[in-house]
Amino acid sequence: MTSNRDPASMLRDSSCQARVLNASDNHATFLFEQGEVSSLLKLTILPFRQRLLSQISSNNSEGGETARIIKLLQHYDFHLSSESGAEYSYYNATPRTGLWNSFLTTLTSFVGITSSPDFGPLQCEFIYPASDRQIQRASPSPSSRLIHETPELYRHVTEPYIQELKQSGSLSWIDNVLSGEKEKERCLLDTQHFLVNVDTKWRSHPDPKTTSREVWYQHEAVDDLYCLAILKDKNVSSLRDLRGSHLAMLKELLDVCPKVIEKTYGISPDMIRCFFHYQPQFYQAHIHFTRIHNEIGAQVERGHLVHDVIQNLEMDPDYYAKRTITYALRITDPLYHRIDVFQSSKASQAA
Amino acid sequence: MTSNRDPASMLRDSSCQARVLNASDNHATFLFEQGEVSSLLKLTILPFRQRLLSQISSNNSEGGETARIIKLLQHYDFHLSSESGAEYSYYNATPRTGLWNSFLTTLTSFVGITSSPDFGPLQCEFIYPASDRQIQRASPSPSSRLIHETPELYRHVTEPYIQELKQSGSLSWIDNVLSGEKEKERCLLDTQHFLVNVDTKWRSHPDPKTTSREVWYQHEAVDDLYCLAILKDKNVSSLRDLRGSHLAMLKELLDVCPKVIEKTYGISPDMIRCFFHYQPQFYQAHIHFTRIHNEIGAQVERGHLVHDVIQNLEMDPDYYAKRTITYALRITDPLYHRIDVFQSSKASQAA
Repeated sequence: MTSNRDPASMLRDSSCQARVLNASDNHATFLFEQGEVSSLLKLTILPFRQRLLSQISSNNSEGGETARIIKLLQHYDFHLSSESGAEYSYYNATPRTGLWNSFLTTLTSFVGITSSPDFGPLQCEFIYPASDRQIQRASPSPSSRLIHETPELYRHVTEPYIQELKQSGSLSWIDNVLSGEKEKERCLLDTQHFLVNVDTKWRSHPDPKTTSREVWYQHEAVDDLYCLAILKDKNVSSLRDLRGSHLAMLKELLDVCPKVIEKTYGISPDMIRCFFHYQPQFYQAHIHFTRIHNEIGAQVERGHLVHDVIQNLEMDPDYYAKRTITYALRITDPLYHRIDVFQSSKASQAA
Repeated sequence: MTSNRDPASMLRDSSCQARVLNASDNHATFLFEQGEVSSLLKLTILPFRQRLLSQISSNNSEGGETARIIKLLQHYDFHLSSESGAEYSYYNATPRTGLWNSFLTTLTSFVGITSSPDFGPLQCEFIYPASDRQIQRASPSPSSRLIHETPELYRHVTEPYIQELKQSGSLSWIDNVLSGEKEKERCLLDTQHFLVNVDTKWRSHPDPKTTSREVWYQHEAVDDLYCLAILKDKNVSSLRDLRGSHLAMLKELLDVCPKVIEKTYGISPDMIRCFFHYQPQFYQAHIHFTRIHNEIGAQVERGHLVHDVIQNLEMDPDYYAKRTITYALRITDPLYHRIDVFQSSKASQAA
């Protein structure tokens, strides 16, 4: 159905519906729907000026918003490119050379601003086709709740949920990355137990396909450093599955990864935090490496420092099997719904 | 020396020197020095437009910056107010009614911007007199490093540092808060072992002196909720000092505090994270209560969830005596310097 389409041609289809899904201070996300297919366009301008987008979306009479957004974007023939892991459905979109300024002029005049704002760097990204989970993640979600996940809750709800997700094939892209078929140009280290990649979220990184690694060393982009170590053992979906038997591997990882990052980028290990997410974004255990001044995704109710994980497993090899782990979930998350149903049913049984 | 002065009159003294210490996207901090006395003025405008301030400070020929800043600020007769904990030296400063707009017009014309920016809310705060530590905290510090604090490092460096700070009298303001002499109007709960206050960092909170508590309930400011539980036991300086013997008190605290917050503000416990900082800002153990969508100060290398602290002490009553604790320190922090000296001396002994 989608094989001969791309997100830019979808935009030009007369039946395409568009709306502003989310507009924060530095990015806006548009949702496009055409028949059964959805696509997301994330536009990042620093500083973005939320005002621009809220003015587009404030005129949201039926059909009116679509017309305005489509009119704004249709003039532009986006050049699409994609990381080699194209199965993510992520595309970088660049208006053909020279068109960014005209795009911005159109955008500002469109919302009735006459002065020319002083825009910073721009990024434009398509996700096509976009899954329900991707749309949900891109939607504004003012409401999250803390979950205290006991081993029992994990066993009855979270673990079956993870198994379903894995069986649905949502991790097939990782097989390609782990086998070296995809993203080889992003790989910093490949060992028996894990590999270390430049995370695709590190957008300011010099193009791994076209720049030599000497250029990466102390490049200004290292300010945004974001690397990822992915464990190869398919039985370790997340932090929950770690046991004392993984200690040697974790210690090796904590020893060698920061060294590889230092050698590649010139950033010393004491400037980098190494941590798991729980819940993670995908269920093949992985470790984030970020600069300590960069706080994205590093909240205490989500992050678990590898230094701490090692000490915990040394204290008790079954530490993560026994613990109640606290994390925040959006109330629109499918896992949140399942937990809510389970806990309500337990409460009514107890009553 | 400073008894008959205030930060606004200091500004009007001809010998006062001024410079921009820090200008981020939402606030700027000015440092004023006059003789031996220093004062900080923190100006918050959302969105701030760093550009405005960098243009003031770019003209930093000797004396020129002082003249520009003083000229900008001297027109305004700030009305000073202070939380009852005035021993912090924190003052809220408001230009007399009607002057904010004129202040902004002056500010923008001053830096050569002709259009009238669309400013959000404004806050102006003086710290006077400002200690070296306060100035250091307000200074830009692009560089922090991760410290892995072993029990040995704590015993030899951190603990003596904390004792010195405490003996210098830096905690006398807490005695006044704990005794109920100060900030009584901010107190939500006072028990044998701890009290719960509205944190003074919660700037959007309706004035505790003049608004009734019914007004606080589901006030729009609860979006920024920030409360603080302070332990009364003077022997517990920080997370490091917690032992199994504190478990009952911590469980009581985790039981009653979220209920008091819910009763006062209408926010349910599963929307609030409860956590220690290590290192903390001051060394009388205290717990932060913030909304989970508000990520300020909640980084994984700084925050320790009370839910986790309780489980850790249940596993081992001496957990925090035995652990290596990881945290980030600015390289300008006096504690960082002491740790660096200690580790260098150990390394040279080992060599």
